[in-house]
Amino acid sequence: MTKQELIHEIKAKRSFLCIGLDVDLEKIPAHLLDTDDPIFEFNKAIIDATHDLTVAYKPNTAFYEAYGLKGWQSLSKTIAYLNENYPSLFTIADAKRGDIGNTSTRYAKAFFEDLNFDSVTVAPYMGSDSVEPFLAFENKFTIMLALTSNKGGLDFQNIKDEEGTTLYEKVLETSLQWKNNEQLMYVVGATRPDYFQKIRKIVPSHFLLVPGIGAQGGDLQGVCDYGLNSDVGLLINSSRGIIYASSGEDFATRARENALELQKEMQTILDAKAL
Amino acid sequence: MTKQELIHEIKAKRSFLCIGLDVDLEKIPAHLLDTDDPIFEFNKAIIDATHDLTVAYKPNTAFYEAYGLKGWQSLSKTIAYLNENYPSLFTIADAKRGDIGNTSTRYAKAFFEDLNFDSVTVAPYMGSDSVEPFLAFENKFTIMLALTSNKGGLDFQNIKDEEGTTLYEKVLETSLQWKNNEQLMYVVGATRPDYFQKIRKIVPSHFLLVPGIGAQGGDLQGVCDYGLNSDVGLLINSSRGIIYASSGEDFATRARENALELQKEMQTILDAKAL
Repeated sequence: MTKQELIHEIKAKRSFLCIGLDVDLEKIPAHLLDTDDPIFEFNKAIIDATHDLTVAYKPNTAFYEAYGLKGWQSLSKTIAYLNENYPSLFTIADAKRGDIGNTSTRYAKAFFEDLNFDSVTVAPYMGSDSVEPFLAFENKFTIMLALTSNKGGLDFQNIKDEEGTTLYEKVLETSLQWKNNEQLMYVVGATRPDYFQKIRKIVPSHFLLVPGIGAQGGDLQGVCDYGLNSDVGLLINSSRGIIYASSGEDFATRARENALELQKEMQTILDAKAL
Repeated sequence: MTKQELIHEIKAKRSFLCIGLDVDLEKIPAHLLDTDDPIFEFNKAIIDATHDLTVAYKPNTAFYEAYGLKGWQSLSKTIAYLNENYPSLFTIADAKRGDIGNTSTRYAKAFFEDLNFDSVTVAPYMGSDSVEPFLAFENKFTIMLALTSNKGGLDFQNIKDEEGTTLYEKVLETSLQWKNNEQLMYVVGATRPDYFQKIRKIVPSHFLLVPGIGAQGGDLQGVCDYGLNSDVGLLINSSRGIIYASSGEDFATRARENALELQKEMQTILDAKAL
C-alpha cells in the first residue's frame, strides 16, 4: 500500500482508527472455543463487524506466538483474510523486531512477503543497519518505536545527551538520515500528549502510530491537538476497549459500537480541522 | 536450567562455545533439500556432530520466521530434539523480543513454555516493565542487548548522557535494579574487546553472550582477557563459521572440525586461567 492510498482511505472513512487484534483465549466468548480455530473466528467476526469504521488492523505477534504453531497459523489466516476481503485496509504486524543487517532482512521477508503485511513495528536499539533492511521493501512501511506509553519507557527513552537531546528525539532525528526514510512511521505513546508537539517539530510529515487510547489512559483530543498534520498523520490504536467490549455472543456488535464511538469522535476532529 | 548447571557443563566440556543455528535454505547442502524438513535435518546433523564441543545452541528466530509456518515448525522440532537428546545443553532463542508488560509475558510463554528454551534474547528500549515479565520465569534466563557488534550499534548505544555515561552502560546499570536480575545475561559484541573492561566493572558476575567471533571479525583472546570471570561468565557464539564450513555432504564433519578448533582454543584459555 502507498501512503497516498492510506490517506485516501482515512479521508473517505473519516477515521484514523487502528484496531489491535491482541487475542487472548481466556478473554474471548466461550462459544468460540469449540471451533477449529477460535482465534481466527474471533478476528474474522471483529473484522467483519468493524472494517468500515477503521483504516487499520494490528495483530500483536506475541499473542499468536504464545500459542505456538497453532497461533502462528491463526495469525497467518487472519492476515490472509484481511488481504483477500479488505485489501484497502492497512495492516500492521506489531512485532517489534530488529536484528543485524541480513537477519533483519529475514524478518522483513517474514512479515512483508510470507505473511504480506503492509507494515511491521521495529525496535531502534541496534541502529541504522537493523532498520534499513526493512525500508528496502517497496510500498511497505516500517514503524519504529520512538516514545512508548509504558512506565519503563522512561528508563531509557528520556535520557538526555550532553546537548540536552533525549534518546527518543535522537532516534527520530537520526532515522531521518536513513535510506528510504519516507517509508518510516513511528510509535508514540498517547499517555503524554504534550510530547507530540516536540515530536512534530522533528517529524512533521511522517505517520505516528499511537497506542494507549483507552486502556492505557490516553486522551484522543489531546493527541490530535498536537499530532495531526495536513495528511492527518495519525493512526490511533485501540485494542481491548474494542475487541473485549463484551465477552458474550454479542461481542462483535458491541465491538462495532465502541469502534463507532471512536470513529465519530475522529470524524468531529477531522471536520473541525477541515481535513 | 540453573546457572550452576551451565557453569558445570562449561567446566566439564572445557568449552564456552555457543553454536548459532541461523539456517538459510540457500546455503545448506543440496542433498538435504529433498527431505521433508531440510532445516531440521540440517540442524540435527550439526547438533549430533558438535554437541560434545559446545555448551549452547542459539537458533535466530528470524531465519525460521522467514519460512512462515514451515519455518516455525522446523524451530519447534529443533528445540524439541535438543531438549530430548541433549538436556544438559543451554538453549537460546535469539528473538530480540520486547513489548509492554503482559504482552512480554506472552513472548516469555512462547519461548519458555511452548517451545521450552532455557533463555531468550530481548531488546531494552522499552525499559523495566518490558523485561521484568521475562525474568519472572524460574530457571529461565533473559539475555538483554547491551552493546551490539553491528555498525549501527553505535547510532544510539554509545550516546553519552549529561554525566558521561553511555546508553549501553546505563542499560546495564539500570537492569541491576530489576526484580530477579540474577536471571539476566547480556549481549556484548566481540568486535570491541576493550569495552569488556568497562562492562565487567558494571556487571562482574553475569554471563555475557558474545556474537561476532569469526564472521564479524571478533578476537577470542582479546574478549577473554577482559571478559572472563570466576564462573567463566562468557558464551562465545559462532554461527556461519561452523555451520557453513562446507556446503557438501561432509558439512557436519567439517562443522565439527571448526567447532573443535574453537573448543581447543577455549580449553587453552581456561587452563591458563585455572578455571
